[in-house]
Amino acid sequence: MIDFNAFHKITYGLFIVSSGDRMKGNGFISNTVFQVTSDPPKFAVCCNKDNYTSGLIKNSGVFSVSVLEQETAPDILGRFGFRSGRDFNKLEGMSIRYGQTDVPIILNASIAFLECKVTQTVDTGTHLIFIGDLVQSEVLDKTKEPLTYLYYRQVKKGTAPKNAPTYIDKSKLETSKNVGQFKKYKCAACGYIYDEEKENIRFSDLPADWLCPVCGSEKSDFIEV
Amino acid sequence: MIDFNAFHKITYGLFIVSSGDRMKGNGFISNTVFQVTSDPPKFAVCCNKDNYTSGLIKNSGVFSVSVLEQETAPDILGRFGFRSGRDFNKLEGMSIRYGQTDVPIILNASIAFLECKVTQTVDTGTHLIFIGDLVQSEVLDKTKEPLTYLYYRQVKKGTAPKNAPTYIDKSKLETSKNVGQFKKYKCAACGYIYDEEKENIRFSDLPADWLCPVCGSEKSDFIEV
Repeated sequence: MIDFNAFHKITYGLFIVSSGDRMKGNGFISNTVFQVTSDPPKFAVCCNKDNYTSGLIKNSGVFSVSVLEQETAPDILGRFGFRSGRDFNKLEGMSIRYGQTDVPIILNASIAFLECKVTQTVDTGTHLIFIGDLVQSEVLDKTKEPLTYLYYRQVKKGTAPKNAPTYIDKSKLETSKNVGQFKKYKCAACGYIYDEEKENIRFSDLPADWLCPVCGSEKSDFIEV
Repeated sequence: MIDFNAFHKITYGLFIVSSGDRMKGNGFISNTVFQVTSDPPKFAVCCNKDNYTSGLIKNSGVFSVSVLEQETAPDILGRFGFRSGRDFNKLEGMSIRYGQTDVPIILNASIAFLECKVTQTVDTGTHLIFIGDLVQSEVLDKTKEPLTYLYYRQVKKGTAPKNAPTYIDKSKLETSKNVGQFKKYKCAACGYIYDEEKENIRFSDLPADWLCPVCGSEKSDFIEV
């Protein structure tokens, strides 16, 4: 038996993994960043092959990791987690530092960062694991706690996008209550579409304090389309 | 510049990763367990090549992950985290379930478990990353929170053993205060030796609420040897 609820007992942080150079860069929200050796310090990130950033890491051979603070604003999570760098320039207007390798490092909502040079790439099926030697690391804010995936799910009511290694089709977590026609609801603030068919949960069944995963607007700001 | 304090901003859980079969089994405390793909569900563990369990995973091709609860007793952390299965049978007296692959699954202090069959092994230098297809998973206790590495370090005052991917030589975190002779201190309860030379922190400089990492005894229970 596979109980998908067991997956939620594994603790992760939440990060922006970025790649590219001074001309073209992108980043995405990742929960799978981890140290693989201490001597020398090596770090790994796990990235869906379809992610725009995945191609940038392959081409440039570098990536950065920005460790998000606990109270990261929803627009940062929406910008980097639920939209694609193919559609718009995610880095525009962001606070960026370029690393020793010229990789962009996102400073918004970040309490620390790592900069790595890829030494190994592992194909795991839908995802690639990029393993890199640490080039530099720095703490940006000593006073703040890192955002954890649990906090994001429990307090922020956030979900994983389809490309995340930890994405769970909600129909696997509970018996689907969906019969008959599915509806779509649009966030009046940012235009995000909540699609009942994709989410497998009726919009009316979402908790009252559920927030738009892109911009953080309240449930009452959504209109049926 | 490499700031080792940045490494501590990366969030991890704490787990017992076990391997072997009904005849011979072992487990160790790991903080690097993560999901790598969702379809099919695959999980990875990172394991020092010198770890006894590492050899068992290579030989048996299976591993289990027990997700530890927040209030895991120090003797469980000491038994699986700071002692080697080469020296004694860690599984003796423990509550064990054998999985579909016959891999031992530790149930003590565990709120969920995963059982995996290795499909890929990645050599990263001092450590191996074992990637496995999920065979089964189960939640054992819905009511308890998982233990995080941060909670272990901050509340339990625990440290990483030398074989951990996240081990940090403390001299890299702060200017070493050690001049002159190093001393050793023995835990009167369990015999654990605190070696100032290895730890790079004077025993007297440890906080008053520091606990023996093996059995949880208080600092005052240690005697100079």
